[in-house]
Amino acid sequence: MEFEYNEFKVIENELNKDELRFSESIMSLANEYMGMRGNFEEKYSGDSLQGTYIGGVWFPDKTKVGWWKIGYPEYFGKMINSPNFIGIGVSIDGQELDLNVEDIVSYRRELDMEKGLLKRSFQIKRSGKTFQIGVERFVSIDTKEICAIKYSVKALDSDAVVEFLPYIDADVENEDSNYEEKFWQVLDKGAHENTGYLVSKTIENNFGVERFTICNYMVSRLYSDQGQDYKFEASMDDESVSTKAVSKLGPGQELILEKIIATTTTRDHKEEDLALVAGDLAKEAAGAGYDNLFERHALKWRQRWDIADVVIKNNPKLQQGIRYNIFQLFSTYYGDDLRLNIGPKGFTGEKYGGATYWDTEAYIIPMYLSTAPQEVTRNLLLYRYNQLAEAYHNANMQGLKGALYPMVTFNGIECHNEWEITFEEIHRNGSIAYAIYNYANYTGDYEYIVDYGIDVLVGISRFWADRVHYSQRNRKYMIHGVTGPNEYENNVNNNWYTNTIAAWTLEFTMAMVDKLGDKLGPKLASLDIDQDELGRWKDIVDNMYYPYDEDLGVFVQHDTFLDKDLQPVDALADSDRPLNKNWAWDKILRSCYIKQADVLQGIYYFGDRYADEEKKNNYLFYEPMTVHESSLSACIHSVLACEIGLEEKAVGMYERTARLDLDNYNKDTDDGLHITSMSGAWMSIVQGFAGMRTYDGHLSFAPILPGDWDGYSFNINYRGRLINLDVNQDEVSISLKKGSPIDLDIYKEKHLLEDKLVIKRG
Amino acid sequence: MEFEYNEFKVIENELNKDELRFSESIMSLANEYMGMRGNFEEKYSGDSLQGTYIGGVWFPDKTKVGWWKIGYPEYFGKMINSPNFIGIGVSIDGQELDLNVEDIVSYRRELDMEKGLLKRSFQIKRSGKTFQIGVERFVSIDTKEICAIKYSVKALDSDAVVEFLPYIDADVENEDSNYEEKFWQVLDKGAHENTGYLVSKTIENNFGVERFTICNYMVSRLYSDQGQDYKFEASMDDESVSTKAVSKLGPGQELILEKIIATTTTRDHKEEDLALVAGDLAKEAAGAGYDNLFERHALKWRQRWDIADVVIKNNPKLQQGIRYNIFQLFSTYYGDDLRLNIGPKGFTGEKYGGATYWDTEAYIIPMYLSTAPQEVTRNLLLYRYNQLAEAYHNANMQGLKGALYPMVTFNGIECHNEWEITFEEIHRNGSIAYAIYNYANYTGDYEYIVDYGIDVLVGISRFWADRVHYSQRNRKYMIHGVTGPNEYENNVNNNWYTNTIAAWTLEFTMAMVDKLGDKLGPKLASLDIDQDELGRWKDIVDNMYYPYDEDLGVFVQHDTFLDKDLQPVDALADSDRPLNKNWAWDKILRSCYIKQADVLQGIYYFGDRYADEEKKNNYLFYEPMTVHESSLSACIHSVLACEIGLEEKAVGMYERTARLDLDNYNKDTDDGLHITSMSGAWMSIVQGFAGMRTYDGHLSFAPILPGDWDGYSFNINYRGRLINLDVNQDEVSISLKKGSPIDLDIYKEKHLLEDKLVIKRG
Repeated sequence: MEFEYNEFKVIENELNKDELRFSESIMSLANEYMGMRGNFEEKYSGDSLQGTYIGGVWFPDKTKVGWWKIGYPEYFGKMINSPNFIGIGVSIDGQELDLNVEDIVSYRRELDMEKGLLKRSFQIKRSGKTFQIGVERFVSIDTKEICAIKYSVKALDSDAVVEFLPYIDADVENEDSNYEEKFWQVLDKGAHENTGYLVSKTIENNFGVERFTICNYMVSRLYSDQGQDYKFEASMDDESVSTKAVSKLGPGQELILEKIIATTTTRDHKEEDLALVAGDLAKEAAGAGYDNLFERHALKWRQRWDIADVVIKNNPKLQQGIRYNIFQLFSTYYGDDLRLNIGPKGFTGEKYGGATYWDTEAYIIPMYLSTAPQEVTRNLLLYRYNQLAEAYHNANMQGLKGALYPMVTFNGIECHNEWEITFEEIHRNGSIAYAIYNYANYTGDYEYIVDYGIDVLVGISRFWADRVHYSQRNRKYMIHGVTGPNEYENNVNNNWYTNTIAAWTLEFTMAMVDKLGDKLGPKLASLDIDQDELGRWKDIVDNMYYPYDEDLGVFVQHDTFLDKDLQPVDALADSDRPLNKNWAWDKILRSCYIKQADVLQGIYYFGDRYADEEKKNNYLFYEPMTVHESSLSACIHSVLACEIGLEEKAVGMYERTARLDLDNYNKDTDDGLHITSMSGAWMSIVQGFAGMRTYDGHLSFAPILPGDWDGYSFNINYRGRLINLDVNQDEVSISLKKGSPIDLDIYKEKHLLEDKLVIKRG
Repeated sequence: MEFEYNEFKVIENELNKDELRFSESIMSLANEYMGMRGNFEEKYSGDSLQGTYIGGVWFPDKTKVGWWKIGYPEYFGKMINSPNFIGIGVSIDGQELDLNVEDIVSYRRELDMEKGLLKRSFQIKRSGKTFQIGVERFVSIDTKEICAIKYSVKALDSDAVVEFLPYIDADVENEDSNYEEKFWQVLDKGAHENTGYLVSKTIENNFGVERFTICNYMVSRLYSDQGQDYKFEASMDDESVSTKAVSKLGPGQELILEKIIATTTTRDHKEEDLALVAGDLAKEAAGAGYDNLFERHALKWRQRWDIADVVIKNNPKLQQGIRYNIFQLFSTYYGDDLRLNIGPKGFTGEKYGGATYWDTEAYIIPMYLSTAPQEVTRNLLLYRYNQLAEAYHNANMQGLKGALYPMVTFNGIECHNEWEITFEEIHRNGSIAYAIYNYANYTGDYEYIVDYGIDVLVGISRFWADRVHYSQRNRKYMIHGVTGPNEYENNVNNNWYTNTIAAWTLEFTMAMVDKLGDKLGPKLASLDIDQDELGRWKDIVDNMYYPYDEDLGVFVQHDTFLDKDLQPVDALADSDRPLNKNWAWDKILRSCYIKQADVLQGIYYFGDRYADEEKKNNYLFYEPMTVHESSLSACIHSVLACEIGLEEKAVGMYERTARLDLDNYNKDTDDGLHITSMSGAWMSIVQGFAGMRTYDGHLSFAPILPGDWDGYSFNINYRGRLINLDVNQDEVSISLKKGSPIDLDIYKEKHLLEDKLVIKRG
């Protein structure tokens, strides 16, 4: 299935019923506060994955993991499907509209990424009568509680009776629920004429986790080209409310429904106020009208694009790819709510419980740093700061000191249920620290470390200091029993990446203690840091064990990696790929094949520490064994491939990351989009092709241009400036669009950027 | 809580309500076909774990293991609690008897191990009236379908109206069921006068696994010292049937109920015949009467004891321990049904899904070989032979050739749900092969290998040959990604024990091919064994990697074991023990502490390969780091401790294994008995203290006697002979009680045993 290439839209010209789940994922809309898959408003009797989600609303589901052991999470957190509020029953001449059974004359659906709008228009034929139907909806980024839908039916060549039945329905399911359990109970409801509301609460749980109540309030209006005034008739069922309006159309006449829904939750309001607040919001929005609401919404999207757009010149395919990623990422998160983060599927599917992964710190923050206001990244950091107590709890559950940030969480408490992940994939903890470094180094805002960051750094450092052990035989500190970024191995010892980031955390924390000196005094005192503790950290840093192979000149992924049967990916048959759909887990674990950058993740993070030769050696050793079956793999490899001059490889990796979902590379986009890897295309362009680096707070570029590209261009925020980089076949132009002059390096030469620099391409 | 020491009984003199689950476990009865915990027949309103189980009747429960991956089992097999058929409601003067609320004057419960009988007698007082109650029950080893109960109430000093309500009830639960699901549905029922029956079927499952139907048929009789004839009145509920009889007693009069229950299942009969067959059995048994049934049952127990008894002289505590183990083991399995095996809790609890573990081959078979007819062990081997196709299936699920016997199963298909166990703890496969060696070597019945064993040996060998990989760097075959017997580590590489038993399997299979030569011809041809394959096996045997440390002179548990922080168990605080109840799993996995014999398991298995010095080195290195938190640990250590002269250690380990449940060492006997470790005490006496070995089909002894013991004595079956060994302070007497003369070694000296040998103790 393919979408039409278009620079700012994703367009579908036919209804592909066999892959509807896939296109539903692609056509998702969200505004950080809530979102939903591209489900149809009207009934659809074919296969579909219904999904509407509210940010921060979840359920702690029971989990069975063989024989429970101390330190296992108590529950498995689930992103639950919320009541369906986009639903609109549509009947024409008494027969319900259902695209699964209609005779479809034409069909077009487009996601307008520039304006954040999903549109459908289609014609159907019924015993000689033809009808033109148009549907639009958006989830407002201007007023977060508002979703607005405009639904029109036009009788092209006959009379017809059209009935609209907008509704809200809490009888929804999660496909991955255990035992077909449903997660909502209706507390209150009401319906009157053209309005209706439903107050629903998540069911009880045994884990003392907060229950959430939400209210969906709808106001509907009907009008036609005749401008008639329509009466609605409301009704209620056990778990739904609806309101009905009917009209007769003559040939050529059109009937239009506007359904405006406001959604409020106990995350922001008291339970007893939910309906009132939602009612006010919905009525006010309905008063303003769909078009007006849309205008305000689209304007905000324009502002976002003005900062963040990346242009790939004269290449609609690649252009569409990167804009799609930026659009979906900004739909998922734009820093409005400190309590939210970026879930792996965002608001586009229910798979992978949990809202927050290390993906945010490792892959997302670099892009937000450059493309969104500084507060957006700061809020992502504060999210972790605010969950520091829970991170201490997580470490304590393992009998360890310090803070262990969760692999998967909604509220800071670990909620994933595989031991090999939850308490072994601890390298994530290093990325939480790395993000603090990244933010301070990029923005220069070291005050953040004084005010907040140091608490997190100390917590994580204490974790590492307790988690290492001293091996008497080797006279080195070691870290046993971990899972590295390569999740195709579990429970390995001395994963080079984990050991590296653990020691780096201690080193960076000590460096901040030195650098920030007296400013940190009171904090350090309150944290009880003393010279003994710093001494122990230094001893660990000085005596950490790093597996290295002299003959190969590579960092060794972990202690026994080189004992494996080492084979290149090329040696695999097509029928073996992807491994995770064809091989037993046992075979995958024992194989040499690497899911995503592991040693190379460390080389990416700490690029200023390693010589080009070292980078190249490691890349050439590991990449050929890497299957890139994580959506997070391609971007790191693309960036490194650019750095060591493997342009073709870099372009291949870029395409893969930029169009991962649009082209359904991993054959699993039907479950939802790969939200947390959506910064990958941006990283590939900006850090890869353009070679942007900010080592030691100093900005540099070294742009390359793939042979058959005309050029690319993007903006970055950097320390109060907006800088545009434009690369074409001959030149690199750098313009200062906002802010004060700055020293930067282009191709390792110093320049002062005052207005615009034009440099021959290196 | 303590039981009175007694040589052939386990006696409880008071009702300990706080530990009722524990005593319910201890007081379990079974006959291989079925069994139940020591639950009371009458109502008990306090805490209790109701459990009645039918051999081979189980349910494949849904399992959630994080993100399911290829090769994970589809379901988690559960031993389900069957309908309660021992229940008898008892009312005195209209008030239900309930020991949880009665004023108890005296209480005694005893398990008569000699006769397989559970007896209770107690007096209660109610507003001045005193009643004496006696209850007996047994599960017949003479007629497997029959359970018989005799229940008497005597009014000691007053008039009383006594009502008995024997019933069968299918509304039972499993405490470990997900979502409080129940597993039975009632298909049919009937009740008339003094009879009643219930036909119940396990609920549907989604895995295509056989459903089981069972019928419980009861016949009750009432009589008193007056010999009256009583009328019963039957009644039925949705999920139960009952029949009621009432009588008036005068002072000193006694009323006695006999309830005889027959249980039939679709494992033996067609569903439509179940009630008929059960009815016939129950009526016939009731006709014979309780006392007569009991006599036949007790006689069979006498015959078992005549072969298998172990006497510890003048030491009721240790005597009770070993007899308890023999009693419970023989209750669980005596080779009557080829489709059954020995579950970890037998018929005494629902914990640990599954009926069959490697425990059978590793720990149980040695004892059955010596203490039960040869057919019993042969049937245990045939059980695996009959599941060879399923073992091939299990290997195939991992993408591997050959046969992989399951870690946990009911029907040959793996049904446990932890990857680190199911497809990593593959050393179990070696024990299946080892049991064949053990049986043939002990009995001399190599025909078994020709007829059946070779198929299993070849299947397992093919698995190992595919599961190893060749490490180019080391020029050795390696086995990565395993869990050894020490389950306190997971996913290790080159576990010495696993590598050893894998290579041994190949070696033994090749040796059998040589030894059995032409006899095997047709089998080998049908198995497609050729010289290439044998050549590859030989190459693996010749080039297997075995981790060894020169400095320490020990086999290394696995590749990186010595990198750990090595500390003795003595360094642990009491509050750390047992680790599995106090430490996070992460900490346990990374620690050096060993759950049960790992390297030492190999040294035990292949004791003729290693010099005393090697044995001692390894024992002294590993035992101090061993926490013995598996019930299977103590016996192996006891045997080895005897061998290397650590008598005190051996005695400690013996006591631990012999009284593990009676003294509730692991504080978990409330869940059920540790059935599969019940051979441990026997192994400690016979292989440990008496030093029995059968290397190369040659019998030898080297008895020692712990300093404060008066002596011990036991029989063994050996190649058609019954041999008695009697050890006291001064001498070792060996008598040939049955069979032809035999050469054997005592203290490494050759003797011919014709009638009796008396030798001074070495």
